[in-house]
Amino acid sequence: MSMNSFGHLFRVTTWGESHGPALGATVDGCPPGVPVEAEALQYWLDKRKPGQNKFTTQRREPDQVEILSGVFEGVSTGTPIQLMIRNTDQRSKDYGDISEKFRPGHADITYWQKYGIRDYRGGGRSSARETAARVAAGGVAREALKQLVPGLTITGYMVQMGPHGIDRDRFDWDEIEQNPFWTPDAQAAADWAAYLDGLRKTGDSVGAVIEVTVRGMPAGLGAPIYGKLDTDLAAAMMSINAVKGVEIGEGMNAACLTGSDNADEIRMGPEGPIYSSNHAGGILGGISTGQDVVVRFSVKPTSSILTTRKTITKSGEETEIITKGRHDPCVGIRAVPVAEAMAACVLLDHVLLHRGQIGANRGQIG
Amino acid sequence: MSMNSFGHLFRVTTWGESHGPALGATVDGCPPGVPVEAEALQYWLDKRKPGQNKFTTQRREPDQVEILSGVFEGVSTGTPIQLMIRNTDQRSKDYGDISEKFRPGHADITYWQKYGIRDYRGGGRSSARETAARVAAGGVAREALKQLVPGLTITGYMVQMGPHGIDRDRFDWDEIEQNPFWTPDAQAAADWAAYLDGLRKTGDSVGAVIEVTVRGMPAGLGAPIYGKLDTDLAAAMMSINAVKGVEIGEGMNAACLTGSDNADEIRMGPEGPIYSSNHAGGILGGISTGQDVVVRFSVKPTSSILTTRKTITKSGEETEIITKGRHDPCVGIRAVPVAEAMAACVLLDHVLLHRGQIGANRGQIG
Amino acid sequence: MSMNSFGHLFRVTTWGESHGPALGATVDGCPPGVPVEAEALQYWLDKRKPGQNKFTTQRREPDQVEILSGVFEGVSTGTPIQLMIRNTDQRSKDYGDISEKFRPGHADITYWQKYGIRDYRGGGRSSARETAARVAAGGVAREALKQLVPGLTITGYMVQMGPHGIDRDRFDWDEIEQNPFWTPDAQAAADWAAYLDGLRKTGDSVGAVIEVTVRGMPAGLGAPIYGKLDTDLAAAMMSINAVKGVEIGEGMNAACLTGSDNADEIRMGPEGPIYSSNHAGGILGGISTGQDVVVRFSVKPTSSILTTRKTITKSGEETEIITKGRHDPCVGIRAVPVAEAMAACVLLDHVLLHRGQIGANRGQIG
Amino acid sequence: MSMNSFGHLFRVTTWGESHGPALGATVDGCPPGVPVEAEALQYWLDKRKPGQNKFTTQRREPDQVEILSGVFEGVSTGTPIQLMIRNTDQRSKDYGDISEKFRPGHADITYWQKYGIRDYRGGGRSSARETAARVAAGGVAREALKQLVPGLTITGYMVQMGPHGIDRDRFDWDEIEQNPFWTPDAQAAADWAAYLDGLRKTGDSVGAVIEVTVRGMPAGLGAPIYGKLDTDLAAAMMSINAVKGVEIGEGMNAACLTGSDNADEIRMGPEGPIYSSNHAGGILGGISTGQDVVVRFSVKPTSSILTTRKTITKSGEETEIITKGRHDPCVGIRAVPVAEAMAACVLLDHVLLHRGQIGANRGQIG
Repeated sequence: MSMNSFGHLFRVTTWGESHGPALGATVDGCPPGVPVEAEALQYWLDKRKPGQNKFTTQRREPDQVEILSGVFEGVSTGTPIQLMIRNTDQRSKDYGDISEKFRPGHADITYWQKYGIRDYRGGGRSSARETAARVAAGGVAREALKQLVPGLTITGYMVQMGPHGIDRDRFDWDEIEQNPFWTPDAQAAADWAAYLDGLRKTGDSVGAVIEVTVRGMPAGLGAPIYGKLDTDLAAAMMSINAVKGVEIGEGMNAACLTGSDNADEIRMGPEGPIYSSNHAGGILGGISTGQDVVVRFSVKPTSSILTTRKTITKSGEETEIITKGRHDPCVGIRAVPVAEAMAACVLLDHVLLHRGQIGANRGQIG
Repeated sequence: MSMNSFGHLFRVTTWGESHGPALGATVDGCPPGVPVEAEALQYWLDKRKPGQNKFTTQRREPDQVEILSGVFEGVSTGTPIQLMIRNTDQRSKDYGDISEKFRPGHADITYWQKYGIRDYRGGGRSSARETAARVAAGGVAREALKQLVPGLTITGYMVQMGPHGIDRDRFDWDEIEQNPFWTPDAQAAADWAAYLDGLRKTGDSVGAVIEVTVRGMPAGLGAPIYGKLDTDLAAAMMSINAVKGVEIGEGMNAACLTGSDNADEIRMGPEGPIYSSNHAGGILGGISTGQDVVVRFSVKPTSSILTTRKTITKSGEETEIITKGRHDPCVGIRAVPVAEAMAACVLLDHVLLHRGQIGANRGQIG
Repeated sequence: MSMNSFGHLFRVTTWGESHGPALGATVDGCPPGVPVEAEALQYWLDKRKPGQNKFTTQRREPDQVEILSGVFEGVSTGTPIQLMIRNTDQRSKDYGDISEKFRPGHADITYWQKYGIRDYRGGGRSSARETAARVAAGGVAREALKQLVPGLTITGYMVQMGPHGIDRDRFDWDEIEQNPFWTPDAQAAADWAAYLDGLRKTGDSVGAVIEVTVRGMPAGLGAPIYGKLDTDLAAAMMSINAVKGVEIGEGMNAACLTGSDNADEIRMGPEGPIYSSNHAGGILGGISTGQDVVVRFSVKPTSSILTTRKTITKSGEETEIITKGRHDPCVGIRAVPVAEAMAACVLLDHVLLHRGQIGANRGQIG
Repeated sequence: MSMNSFGHLFRVTTWGESHGPALGATVDGCPPGVPVEAEALQYWLDKRKPGQNKFTTQRREPDQVEILSGVFEGVSTGTPIQLMIRNTDQRSKDYGDISEKFRPGHADITYWQKYGIRDYRGGGRSSARETAARVAAGGVAREALKQLVPGLTITGYMVQMGPHGIDRDRFDWDEIEQNPFWTPDAQAAADWAAYLDGLRKTGDSVGAVIEVTVRGMPAGLGAPIYGKLDTDLAAAMMSINAVKGVEIGEGMNAACLTGSDNADEIRMGPEGPIYSSNHAGGILGGISTGQDVVVRFSVKPTSSILTTRKTITKSGEETEIITKGRHDPCVGIRAVPVAEAMAACVLLDHVLLHRGQIGANRGQIG
């Protein structure tokens, strides 16, 4: 019921604002005996960290995670793990001039209307900084998954920036770590760099599409009807700031297909069913088939831009605004590690739920 | 935690299979004093009911809802409302010949793997029949919304069938109830009828895109981070059978926009902020702006088709299958009232959550 | 969040009023493959059924349970199990004369104040009839426990009626099924029969204390802090109508003990730790020790009595009331099977939660 | 579902161990605009703090609370409030000699069996230190209640120490703050001081009974069946370390009463119903009557005593143990502020739930 929690058995509650003393994640339900070290979590946080190259915001935060509880002698105890990240580079004065104006496309107006609180220092709870806490929690989930489902890997990457998509024929898993956009298409990386440079000069921003593929999936994770694996993945991704659409497998394009095109044919492999294609994105009826799980989502362009936009003030006067300060021309870039983290949390949760209700898969084939 | 429930304060648990004695919804958390009559709920069920025209499955069920609890002298008592729909036309023998084979694109294989139960009579819990329970529950939510947010309307309609989208310039709210596809574009309705006739003859099926627009929205509904209004809407829609993608406002297309294109400018209207456009789909930071909320989703084509497809049996032998029996060439049609019902449940839930935590919006503008 | 549900992974939502068409339980999260037959559930319902002897209400209901979903070919499918019990003997006219007056000690006044609904036909949702649904759900839990924890038994019995407690030296497990009070003390049964006859003649009622002992407990069930096994047992028992106190092990008497008296000493048995005593009631730090779990609760006397009591009417006038109709001189008797059912639900839930988070106990002794 | 959370809309998750770097509470669902200052919370923490007089443990911790999020310019923002308390006085070496032995009556054996983790430095998550986090969270709840239910007061006090109860005829509200036991009976305070001195000298400990009375209660809070106000209060109290029994109103003694004794008669007062007595403890059918809510619970004696007790080691060898270090001869004393805090959390939660589902009470009397 908690509005700031996600997950059922593996349950993460994030807290903190961009300009308060700290933010973090309270991680409940982690199995005991899982190695949890700050350094390992830091690896993932560093991926998300801003200011690493010219394509992400110049806000510089060490984003150093501290483990305050739930870990003893390097392993989880089974009790809540508190992960805290201090805010250090707050420079709130940059935002001071917009304390009375609402930013078009930004949540400051709805937060004000609902809560009657105007934290003029920054995005408060709606800031992308909140996602650092998710990445830390996702790091814990990854470690637990390593023990419970060896061989499972979760890989996020960018497949579209603005109107420019990748060419799937150039898809190269090894390329993903080689460019600042985490894209599997080297040519796209080169093109996007030029495109983004242009955008950055005009002070504008652009959206993106991120895809996460989970390989080494076991069959049987998920459940009808509201505990579907795809439902939880969709909710997890939609809960990330600026996400406006979520797809599983064929996604929106499934509308265009006929039943004969869409139905992945089934053959018998050496270890169980194999499929001729993966339109389903690895999930049927809310339950994993054992194929790769493929989830995709769009990230809207940030509203913090240097273009003058019409808006109003708290007192209702019409005015204009330009958002100065540090900006991400394509916030979608930093959504990649966040999406991986959310996928890790959802998968671990479903592994635990499955074990809880079922123990192990009950139906044999062959 | 319940895998078959959705909602926080207004909480619906659906139960039942397509070939058992009955199915239904246990509706908890309805405010007291809401008119709940079987006839009013029946109106919505009749919209979803199959067999109404040649474009939906010929399975004929009266889908008569019975109210077993939670209502006294025609109004809700504030205690759980049990809504039951008897299954009457089960004709399970039609499906008997596929009891050993898995249907490509169908959940029977994942259900078998996970649960070790093979209900050869039909789709069991993954059947579209489960959505009748949602529609009944949504009828209750609508009545409560009438009292709490007078003027709010929820309208679902089809905007794409297969590759054929509507022309937004022909959008006519009044047309929606005039054609079997609940589409606002009369020309599209005519085109789709011909297209679907062709598909039906070949025994094939096709996907669709449905859109739901909520008009008369109050500002302030929703919450960060995992209780976002868009998160809950996305989860609600993704939980519907056969849905593969969900979008809010610009949806996946948000990736293509620049920040200056995407940010809806704000002006001051007589009763509060008004917006120059609605790329956001009425939600910023997870909280409603007061604009129309726009949610859209794709429905994949049904896997029950007359085309021969390769598959395997429970014992692991490779074989082929043709699914005889009654089919929906475009199951997306019947998803329209289901989506409206889910939207109604989510909105009522957020109205109650908002009242619970906040009382009434605290921030004034102007 | 649902106000009418209990349990985490094994989750039961009860619904229905004493004078509506039916009541029941929606049981979600049952493992698949558990034998669930109406006859087996009926055995437990018949234990709770009123009108079986002169010491319980003369309302005669067959209390026949129907399984509407979640079971296929006699075993659970892993999807929601709907258990419905029709109300047949409603005779609501007996209660008609009290439709304007509130009964002292009865929930009709608080229901009216909160909900503004006055179901003058009977206790509505606060009626003891609601507990029939719990007993049915508990029957499902028992079957699942049989598979998961063979050897575990749950036995409820009465240890006090009014001021008259049992003599623990006469405790005989085999006696429990031999008398109408489910008490392990044959002498107490005889004494109480005479005592209750006297009370019945004066139209008065009396309270009782029920104890439930779980034998064959595994160690390791439960969790800190709010998911403690004792917390969930206490909540489960306190949620039963008319319960005013709950105890684990020494219960309220723990206040009187010194630390040296209270701490159960530990020795090593052939299969693990054994204890010299069981002051703890089988639970330490919210987690089971493997000893018998002992929970105890008091049931207040029913407020439906033939003594004239002062009260007020809905319009606020002072008046008097005598509750005619059918009464239970000691409703505590019928709480025995209800308490067993609640204990079964809590234990199964914790077995599933334990398996979900931990798999199997991780710490070895010896 | 989270095992370390409590509450529905006002939801508190505590985290942290006695010997880690910090512990705290993540408080979600607090209404916005509530004054939350560290100093105000500190007032309640100082009440619970050990080492204040010779009757509580000599562990000295400043127990200084830091507010890390959810508060802006001194008021709650409506987003999660993170309350952190650093552990400073850990002196873990005191406990080193018992790292291999289990303490009779202590949770170290069940934690080991379940989690396979042995935090030899102290009680870990089962330590009474965890309750500091609850007290901090309760301080937030109190501030919110001040706004929402002015006039409501929550007062905890000790009514029994070991076998020695208070004399209700000497009950004096003003006395409660005047003695180290928070007892309303000055004579009992004097007697207990002498009694406890004796116990302390022998290195033994003793149990206690605490009572919490809520005055100024509104009618209508709570809900059937599993969201009963008394169910939630019982669960809240039973979740406190060392609690073994919980009572509402007459509690276990309700068993001894007849229906004519137990039913509180109703008269009409100037502002609504008034009652001749309060056997019910202010709750009927799970919903508050408007009378004082009275909840009572027992605290077992701490297992950390200087008496030699038989036990076993991790490797299963039989041995003996004496627990040296700092001890509370009567831990019940420090449970008083904890119980008040839990009551505050439960009440605020039910105020929000009530407002969410109902808005305001719907039934008028008179």
